[in-house]
Amino acid sequence: MKNDKRVWLYDTTLRDGAQREGISLSLEDKITIARELDRMGIPFIEGGWPGANPRDGQFFWKLHEEPLERAELVAFCSTRRPNVRAAEDKMLQAILAAKTRWVTIFGKSWDLHVTEGLKTTLEENLAMIRDTIEYLRSRGKRVIYDAEHWFDGYLQNPVHAIDTLKTAISAGAEWLVLCDTNGGTLPAEVSWIAGEVREKLAIDPDDENSPQLGIHAHNDAGVAVANSLAAVIEGARMVQGTINGYGERCGNANLCTLIPNLQVKMGYDCLETEQLTRLTETSRKVSEIVNLAPDEHAPFVGRSAFAHKGGIHVSAVAKNPLTYEHIAPEAIGNQRRIVISDQSGLSNVLSKASSFGIDLDKNDPTCRQILDRLKELESEGYQFEAAEASFELLLREALGQRQTMFDLKGFQVHCDMLRSESEAIATIKVTVKGEDLLEVAEGIGPVSALDKALRKALVKFYPEVAHFHLTDYKVRILDSGSGTEAKTRVLVESSNGHHRWTTVGVSSNILEASYRAVVEGIEYGLSILPRRSEEAGGRRQEAGGGDLVGSQISR
Amino acid sequence: MKNDKRVWLYDTTLRDGAQREGISLSLEDKITIARELDRMGIPFIEGGWPGANPRDGQFFWKLHEEPLERAELVAFCSTRRPNVRAAEDKMLQAILAAKTRWVTIFGKSWDLHVTEGLKTTLEENLAMIRDTIEYLRSRGKRVIYDAEHWFDGYLQNPVHAIDTLKTAISAGAEWLVLCDTNGGTLPAEVSWIAGEVREKLAIDPDDENSPQLGIHAHNDAGVAVANSLAAVIEGARMVQGTINGYGERCGNANLCTLIPNLQVKMGYDCLETEQLTRLTETSRKVSEIVNLAPDEHAPFVGRSAFAHKGGIHVSAVAKNPLTYEHIAPEAIGNQRRIVISDQSGLSNVLSKASSFGIDLDKNDPTCRQILDRLKELESEGYQFEAAEASFELLLREALGQRQTMFDLKGFQVHCDMLRSESEAIATIKVTVKGEDLLEVAEGIGPVSALDKALRKALVKFYPEVAHFHLTDYKVRILDSGSGTEAKTRVLVESSNGHHRWTTVGVSSNILEASYRAVVEGIEYGLSILPRRSEEAGGRRQEAGGGDLVGSQISR
Repeated sequence: MKNDKRVWLYDTTLRDGAQREGISLSLEDKITIARELDRMGIPFIEGGWPGANPRDGQFFWKLHEEPLERAELVAFCSTRRPNVRAAEDKMLQAILAAKTRWVTIFGKSWDLHVTEGLKTTLEENLAMIRDTIEYLRSRGKRVIYDAEHWFDGYLQNPVHAIDTLKTAISAGAEWLVLCDTNGGTLPAEVSWIAGEVREKLAIDPDDENSPQLGIHAHNDAGVAVANSLAAVIEGARMVQGTINGYGERCGNANLCTLIPNLQVKMGYDCLETEQLTRLTETSRKVSEIVNLAPDEHAPFVGRSAFAHKGGIHVSAVAKNPLTYEHIAPEAIGNQRRIVISDQSGLSNVLSKASSFGIDLDKNDPTCRQILDRLKELESEGYQFEAAEASFELLLREALGQRQTMFDLKGFQVHCDMLRSESEAIATIKVTVKGEDLLEVAEGIGPVSALDKALRKALVKFYPEVAHFHLTDYKVRILDSGSGTEAKTRVLVESSNGHHRWTTVGVSSNILEASYRAVVEGIEYGLSILPRRSEEAGGRRQEAGGGDLVGSQISR
Repeated sequence: MKNDKRVWLYDTTLRDGAQREGISLSLEDKITIARELDRMGIPFIEGGWPGANPRDGQFFWKLHEEPLERAELVAFCSTRRPNVRAAEDKMLQAILAAKTRWVTIFGKSWDLHVTEGLKTTLEENLAMIRDTIEYLRSRGKRVIYDAEHWFDGYLQNPVHAIDTLKTAISAGAEWLVLCDTNGGTLPAEVSWIAGEVREKLAIDPDDENSPQLGIHAHNDAGVAVANSLAAVIEGARMVQGTINGYGERCGNANLCTLIPNLQVKMGYDCLETEQLTRLTETSRKVSEIVNLAPDEHAPFVGRSAFAHKGGIHVSAVAKNPLTYEHIAPEAIGNQRRIVISDQSGLSNVLSKASSFGIDLDKNDPTCRQILDRLKELESEGYQFEAAEASFELLLREALGQRQTMFDLKGFQVHCDMLRSESEAIATIKVTVKGEDLLEVAEGIGPVSALDKALRKALVKFYPEVAHFHLTDYKVRILDSGSGTEAKTRVLVESSNGHHRWTTVGVSSNILEASYRAVVEGIEYGLSILPRRSEEAGGRRQEAGGGDLVGSQISR
């Protein structure tokens, strides 16, 4: 479907998104995210509320010195306070100091918030909207008007609500954004209300000179994306949302879901096709910057969004991807994955093995042995879905192809916060190429000490170990109900500067679990990675070779 | 809104939900979940596919011996294979062996899946549907027919798709469930297709003797809930979904979102009002059983769903909850929370303190000191949103009300996997009531050893410590990009058998972070909990007193 109509994307990750519990952005974080959004081609990026906190003011100054390439940076602010002249409202001075071309002003639509919240009259509410927008227009700003609590307000007092928008238009606002601030509106209501607003304000979505409608949805009823789509169908030409749907309470409309729906499925024009392929990467980068684990089950961009686990699905997708995939994952920079797990039938194992370059015959009894071993380990708490390097080691072992790079005899960890403020000390005993080694190292914590001691021992025999380092370390408590005696699953991501791979260790002792994952990480890097890199080098000539390497970099 | 129409809930957590990456259910897990769903009043509970794996067979036998109280347990199966008699299909024998009154049979709606997947003809597809349903009817079963890939199939070949449903009706199916198997359909499409189906099959949603439509949506486009609502508006009277939206790829329609939307917002009759208040608890219990962290931002049931963080929201909600809450959290067993965080203004701290029974004056300079200390700790990686016990200790300290229960001098941890397979050993030095103590204990891992050593030292002075135990232990790596040297945040939940409370510790050394959280947990249990319990006892007489205790039990 292609309808050639433009929908303007407006990102508020840096303002509304940052309200999410658990997010706390530094100035540098905000700048990095803004540049990432700019690169992806988002036309409007809301940077913050300059008067509300000093960091947001600094953010606008920084980006005024070194501007974004294409996006319009937008400063956010409320209308003036009641009974104050716009020119004397400090917040409005702060928004002017942000020096953006565009500003977003939010005002009250719901009479309850005017009379109970602001303790003022509906007339004064209209005056606040008019004065603020007229003042900002007189200072050369272009204005987006966010109608806060639009849907609740319209249901309670449609006359006053419509008056607020008429006031905003006559004062010079170019966009009127219907905000579902409490997030409780359902799609059918959004449809009829947005349709009525369009008619009552005589807005023509196809006329460039007409003021236009936008939608700003929250996800408290789980339908923020559907509400945004409903508004677009009724003529809204701007959607406001956040990357990964971050936002207060249940979040804002998720742009990573909205954009592919609008563009790939409904044919609206939002981003260049090339920019759209950056979507998955942008989603993951932003989640790294805000330091939240990515939602692996997120539509379109999640690691599991195109993952196939059930046996029937796996064999059908191998025949024809259309059968179980609603869009091509490549369009948004994601990729298909075949998942290894408890439920996997033989076909999953075969398909995964073949992605490692191992051709297994399904009648080979080794296959059954691998499946049995897999189930045994999973019942102990292992999971290989995120630890493909460990899974490949398991496969190679079953096939008699696991090389002995070193033989570990054990470790000791000592951590003394009693007599000194010392770091942790780890001792490791290992046999390499017939030689017994005892090595010791200090680290900031016990796992770092273990990793250092092992690499110190091995580097004499395998110099490439000097380039290995741990890039991620994740701990998951299984059966967390049993407190500190619970089983611990540790995922370790290692890198040699070019490739990343993930290994897993499980134990009731967090140190032992960490140790196992670290050891497998080093073994994989030494024994399998060189082979993989050669093959990938060769395959990259052929189509699709990059995917193989991609599937190893399982982040 | 109340419309008195019944919508039948059909839960498939145990079958489709279990397909989610990361979920692996034991027989006991499945039984526990089924009983929980039964208690909440879900009328149809799909238990599994009896022929597909032995565990599902056992599950049905177990529940046949000790049946559910009210729910209909449903067994799931495909139609017979092509060119085989129904009576000779092993899968159909297995579904009969499950001994349920109701069975769900899924068949193909999309011609592509018939010709390419099954390699058979469209005529044989109709015969497979007819034979299977007629056979099961002849053996006394009542039949729900799941029309797999309905929407894709209808768009490709509406004549064949409608024929499959007509065949299912004439063979005796009572429910026809439109499945969006690939999850790519958008609400507007669901509306018009469901409307057309209702007309073409002459289904009357209000006639008890008519076959009825159902909807089974997947979330690949982020609109599974909205699609389900759209189908209900068009006359579907059954919604299939899973608790917490678990399911393959991006999951199934989330019943925890759908139920409140249907019942509280749209007025359909799904559960008793009393049963609905179990929703939040059920959501969290199921997430514990499947061992996945609950989605704190989930609509309705998430811990953040009614959490208020921004200063404006907090003060408005204090005046009138309606201003920023779309429904009353109590209706679904959730509760309002005021969040302590970096962004919190003074009003959040005041409001939280008052929930601890501490009345602060906002002009008191101590308030500013508390805010400053909070920001300092948060910049080190502390977070108090989930660790209210630690926050209360912080408040009491600032107010000069923190009692010294014991004075820690330090700890040593030793873990030897070199000379022995021993457990970890922890030594702790502590001064209690003027007496210096050195204690040592063994544990299965270092944290458990630390906890034991500390309690061993303290129990002589504080016998109640004998009843304390750790009930949950969570590790989060902050800044995970720096590998094993990253900062670690540990949350520890402690219990004395009646109350639970959560404390936090942060350090680059995972042992030190754990130690800090464990120590604060014991301190809170000794110094603050007794006071809290007395107050709560007093307050429980008044309305709302239970909430106070509830807010301490922050799970």
